[in-house]
Amino acid sequence: MAIALTGIGELVTNEPEHDGTALGIVEHAAVVVDNGRIAWVGRAVDAPAADTERDLGGRAVLPGFVDSHTHLVFAGDRGSEFAARMAGAPYDGGGIASTVAATRGASEDQLRALLGRRIAELRAQGTTSVEIKSGYGLRRDDEARLLRLAAEVTGETTYLGAHVVPPEVDRGDYLALVTGEMLDACAPHARWIDVFCEPASPHAFDGDEARAVLEAGRAHGLLLRVHGNQLSAGPGVRLAVELGAASVDHCTYLTDADVAALSAGDTVATLLPGAEFSTRAPYPDARRLLDAGVTVALATDCNPGTSYTSSMPFVIALAVREMRMTAAEAVWAATAGGARALQRTDVGRITPGARADLAVLEAPSHTHLAYRPGVPLASTLAVGE
Amino acid sequence: MAIALTGIGELVTNEPEHDGTALGIVEHAAVVVDNGRIAWVGRAVDAPAADTERDLGGRAVLPGFVDSHTHLVFAGDRGSEFAARMAGAPYDGGGIASTVAATRGASEDQLRALLGRRIAELRAQGTTSVEIKSGYGLRRDDEARLLRLAAEVTGETTYLGAHVVPPEVDRGDYLALVTGEMLDACAPHARWIDVFCEPASPHAFDGDEARAVLEAGRAHGLLLRVHGNQLSAGPGVRLAVELGAASVDHCTYLTDADVAALSAGDTVATLLPGAEFSTRAPYPDARRLLDAGVTVALATDCNPGTSYTSSMPFVIALAVREMRMTAAEAVWAATAGGARALQRTDVGRITPGARADLAVLEAPSHTHLAYRPGVPLASTLAVGE
Repeated sequence: MAIALTGIGELVTNEPEHDGTALGIVEHAAVVVDNGRIAWVGRAVDAPAADTERDLGGRAVLPGFVDSHTHLVFAGDRGSEFAARMAGAPYDGGGIASTVAATRGASEDQLRALLGRRIAELRAQGTTSVEIKSGYGLRRDDEARLLRLAAEVTGETTYLGAHVVPPEVDRGDYLALVTGEMLDACAPHARWIDVFCEPASPHAFDGDEARAVLEAGRAHGLLLRVHGNQLSAGPGVRLAVELGAASVDHCTYLTDADVAALSAGDTVATLLPGAEFSTRAPYPDARRLLDAGVTVALATDCNPGTSYTSSMPFVIALAVREMRMTAAEAVWAATAGGARALQRTDVGRITPGARADLAVLEAPSHTHLAYRPGVPLASTLAVGE
Repeated sequence: MAIALTGIGELVTNEPEHDGTALGIVEHAAVVVDNGRIAWVGRAVDAPAADTERDLGGRAVLPGFVDSHTHLVFAGDRGSEFAARMAGAPYDGGGIASTVAATRGASEDQLRALLGRRIAELRAQGTTSVEIKSGYGLRRDDEARLLRLAAEVTGETTYLGAHVVPPEVDRGDYLALVTGEMLDACAPHARWIDVFCEPASPHAFDGDEARAVLEAGRAHGLLLRVHGNQLSAGPGVRLAVELGAASVDHCTYLTDADVAALSAGDTVATLLPGAEFSTRAPYPDARRLLDAGVTVALATDCNPGTSYTSSMPFVIALAVREMRMTAAEAVWAATAGGARALQRTDVGRITPGARADLAVLEAPSHTHLAYRPGVPLASTLAVGE
């Protein structure tokens, strides 16, 4: 059944043909949705007839947010670690162990219920696509369990056995597990493999280890993504580009060579300013990347340790305030950019044939996502549900 | 009819008797509400019988936020000015004129509808008390109209004819109007008088002018508050303390003498970090004020020019990230602190006899307001409505 959405004050399509800008804005627009897909996009006055019509009263509509970096399957919270960090304690990745313990101790039903609540929370804020990593199991069956649960809610599942080396496990033994038996158990439930490449953390992995993890994953048919350059200008970014990873995430500390590599390659730089907000770290320099022609995505990094936000609008507001992105660049990065980071062409844009994954704002323009920080303006537009 | 709220995982009362801290936390708590007032507070196991019971499933409950500084009655928005500022344009208060023009041009019904929507937006985010200033009329009848509209939704109305000198009006003539005929027209609709004391802005008022405005207001029975030290270390803070103002708001640039004056006086320092976020200005030094024993409040400054957020949780998260307040200090400042800034004892606390103005969190603790930035966790708990 075709549904016409009319009265759209501002429609962000991410199709430049409409106005010559990256956001492809159509004013006074309509969208026709049929069977879960976009069937027609244009000015409301030109809209074809549909079975039903819904007037959005001048609100802005944009592609649902594509949150391409989350760690949503976990138990427990780390509010006290957060409070200690705000009082001055440093972050080095070590606190992950407490989430691992709580997650291993939770039943499958408990984890499913927690995940379901988080997915509902994301959707309520306008996110329609989400990537979910494992990485709080760190044992063969625990990692596989997290990925099976994640696969119940998204196709974008990422095996992150190489999140940290668990306490009291030999580093060499753990690498053998991550690239061997654990990978065998996890690969059937994952689309992606990821590694926390960070020589500055005693818990994470150096360049050679990260390469071994990624190459093993690729040999099992997984596509690549990397946590790189979060705490120092390590080898993560260049490794990601060299291996053709879809995305390298964080990019907080970059050398000129890193920027040049990103500029010459196809790897998306995914920035996660929620993590810098919640660890009181310096923000990545988005302007430098954009000016070098790098494709930038924004994501929440939603996790209980360093970025327990699920709000893409909050990330957009931070990107504008702290990383000198324009509101248009930030909205593109949170939608089309996220889709690029997941190598998806059916989301992150509003064009015939794409999925009807739409966000609607209690506002007349996408700029309000930065102009009205903290206000819950965005929600997922449920069409025909 | 008495209603018992049970299953409160963490109750923030702001009554230190409960746990020896400023937040007065009771765990596993219940609250009994009768006829719009708090009738009983304590541990759930000790709760008296009530007519009905509502189980909050472990959620945290706190006093509804007291937003003691807003400019909610206006028409139009300034999204393009915001975008220009994010691209590098400075803020000096001059953009207020565009909101004045739009507000003067709006009908009373239009303004009432816009205000009603904003009040609903605040309530949905957990705010139960709000102060509203005039200041976008800047002519006798326009200012009086804004205050009449504000008085329809709150008792905390503030006459801010001395917001800026309107363009093309003689400064001396305008001061005579603000302290004469306009004051006569506005005083019946206002509890407070306020002035934008800022010698660094060509549009605002210097110390002598601000004193004249405040003294005229006091002579008409109005209580005093001041916009001070937002753009420079001007005379606003010391003037506010000298005249016994309830609050001096912004406090972004303070000398040692300013801090000493606040410390010795009874004037609350109300910090508005949403304005620093949206003007990319340095944040006030809350730590310095708290360490000097100054009473600190947090408010949104919700206005279309410099801080178009209505979210007290966002302000709390900024206060922790950027101003080195603890989550407990920030939550106190956004509730009890706001009540102090409005000289109210019936809100900002949960104790028998206080108004049953409650906020509930989709979270187990008040710390989540800072730990989960941008996530709409807080809402107003409607009791018996």
